[in-house]
Amino acid sequence: MKYYGGIDLGGTNTKIGLLDENANLIFSESIKTLAENGYKDTVERVSKIFLDKMIEYKIDKKDLVAVGFGIPGPAVNKREIKMFANLPWPKNLKIADDFKEKLNVPVWIDNDVNVITLGEVFAGAAKGYNEVVGIAIGTGIGAGVVTEGKIVSGKLGAAGELGHITLVPRGSLCGCGQRGCFEAYGSALAIIREANSRLAVNKNTSLYEISKERDLEAKDIFDAAKAGDKMAVSIVDDTADMIALGISHALNMLNPELIIIGGGVSLAGDYLFDKVKTKLNDYALPTTLEELEIKQAILGNDAGVYGAAYLAMTEINRGK
Amino acid sequence: MKYYGGIDLGGTNTKIGLLDENANLIFSESIKTLAENGYKDTVERVSKIFLDKMIEYKIDKKDLVAVGFGIPGPAVNKREIKMFANLPWPKNLKIADDFKEKLNVPVWIDNDVNVITLGEVFAGAAKGYNEVVGIAIGTGIGAGVVTEGKIVSGKLGAAGELGHITLVPRGSLCGCGQRGCFEAYGSALAIIREANSRLAVNKNTSLYEISKERDLEAKDIFDAAKAGDKMAVSIVDDTADMIALGISHALNMLNPELIIIGGGVSLAGDYLFDKVKTKLNDYALPTTLEELEIKQAILGNDAGVYGAAYLAMTEINRGK
Repeated sequence: MKYYGGIDLGGTNTKIGLLDENANLIFSESIKTLAENGYKDTVERVSKIFLDKMIEYKIDKKDLVAVGFGIPGPAVNKREIKMFANLPWPKNLKIADDFKEKLNVPVWIDNDVNVITLGEVFAGAAKGYNEVVGIAIGTGIGAGVVTEGKIVSGKLGAAGELGHITLVPRGSLCGCGQRGCFEAYGSALAIIREANSRLAVNKNTSLYEISKERDLEAKDIFDAAKAGDKMAVSIVDDTADMIALGISHALNMLNPELIIIGGGVSLAGDYLFDKVKTKLNDYALPTTLEELEIKQAILGNDAGVYGAAYLAMTEINRGK
Repeated sequence: MKYYGGIDLGGTNTKIGLLDENANLIFSESIKTLAENGYKDTVERVSKIFLDKMIEYKIDKKDLVAVGFGIPGPAVNKREIKMFANLPWPKNLKIADDFKEKLNVPVWIDNDVNVITLGEVFAGAAKGYNEVVGIAIGTGIGAGVVTEGKIVSGKLGAAGELGHITLVPRGSLCGCGQRGCFEAYGSALAIIREANSRLAVNKNTSLYEISKERDLEAKDIFDAAKAGDKMAVSIVDDTADMIALGISHALNMLNPELIIIGGGVSLAGDYLFDKVKTKLNDYALPTTLEELEIKQAILGNDAGVYGAAYLAMTEINRGK
């Protein structure tokens, strides 16, 4: 039996996993990234824990074919990262080569949201679909674009940066430094910002009581809206409108057959999805809605492990 | 020597061409589409003229390998058209099969702007580039998306509908029936609409004198702006701003290495392009601008013939 490693490197946690050639998950474990100890330390420690884990599961190292990684940044040629979104590491790191040196097998890397989307295509909600856009809506917004079953990376790995398309020229400040981005209107953080902003002028809402006790979370606003709180409903309606506008751009550019939505905000479920679907009619070209499905991601925290291992499988076969 | 036909079917004119296997243009001729005589008549007449033209050029029919077509509508599976943008024909036509019956060689079709973009990749301004977005800005706006050297079609052939992404929710009415589309702000028609709209409240412009004599054309506004007319400069600035916003969406989604701009508006040249490039900094993620080139299309009216023939070449080789 052959095996493929899948490692989803995150700003705080890193998920380490192994799949066999039949896509069975052998192990999947979350460890701390400890990025603050430096890049070199993380490469060594993650590699060692991964190899120890293989020994623990009695997998012969010679049966490990390749390892794939999901990384929080744009990946160039599936080998290098020019800059990191959330890691205090230098620019222009040859991540694939550095892990290859420790693991002694071929290594490929790709952007984390690309890899999550690949995971859903390989073993999740997008299995059997070839034209897919995966959108992760959490604190930020990222996307992975799949056409003819393969990830679109673009020249420098920055394809799928749907979170930073400008929806509102001269609009709200985004974490990326630009203004009016999709992420500044459709993310969990945007929802919380909007609620806090409205509370400054209107305290006639159940959210006010919560905000006196602790910081609001996006879930509070969805829960309040579902319970009929007027301000919360208005915020969710406006957010759904902006999510639909952002998605419509992906539809018109790529005409996918499936949109997969993951991340914390997707947990609001059909209450949010139904509003988004209705609003899509205002923005998307009708043809792009004709055979479109919108589904919630199903692999959750394991999506990155599945996708990274699948990346390794695909690339090793492409080389043959 | 082997030969490949390339036919660019348009609402008014149809361009008929033939390339040899070394990409030399053997002939290229424009005929009337006469779409009003009906779909069947056009298929028969265009096929006959193409075959007669081959006889005129003493090309043996048995050396014709395949024929490609550019069609003004979204092409499904490179064989069918669900609906036409500018042709008074029924929906759901099996165009490839119907032409194949008359031409007796394999036939493939694709959207006209996709095919024009392929032409520029094959033999024009995008030769040697793999990640390309071609944008045709004329009366309307269309785009073709190329990743890893191949056209992205999407599920129903509607990928690349950049002209109908919503730039301004509840904005100007677009020809497609929706509101606020890129096409309603960045096309030649949009520029003329804006000029006429401004003339209703301000006649202190050289455009007023022209408008008394005849209908304004987009070229009038560019010429007046280049000559320093204040209103015309303001219209061109606003148009460049919207073109940059529209292009930025393609950059963030696809991270291309090259944007090719064709169509009538592109003839305004560097005067317009320089403004667009400056404005792109307001909207595009900086990474997507790092290795980006923006070029004017160079094949002009022959782009469709080159691209359609290249489509035929690519598809016949893919089948092998």
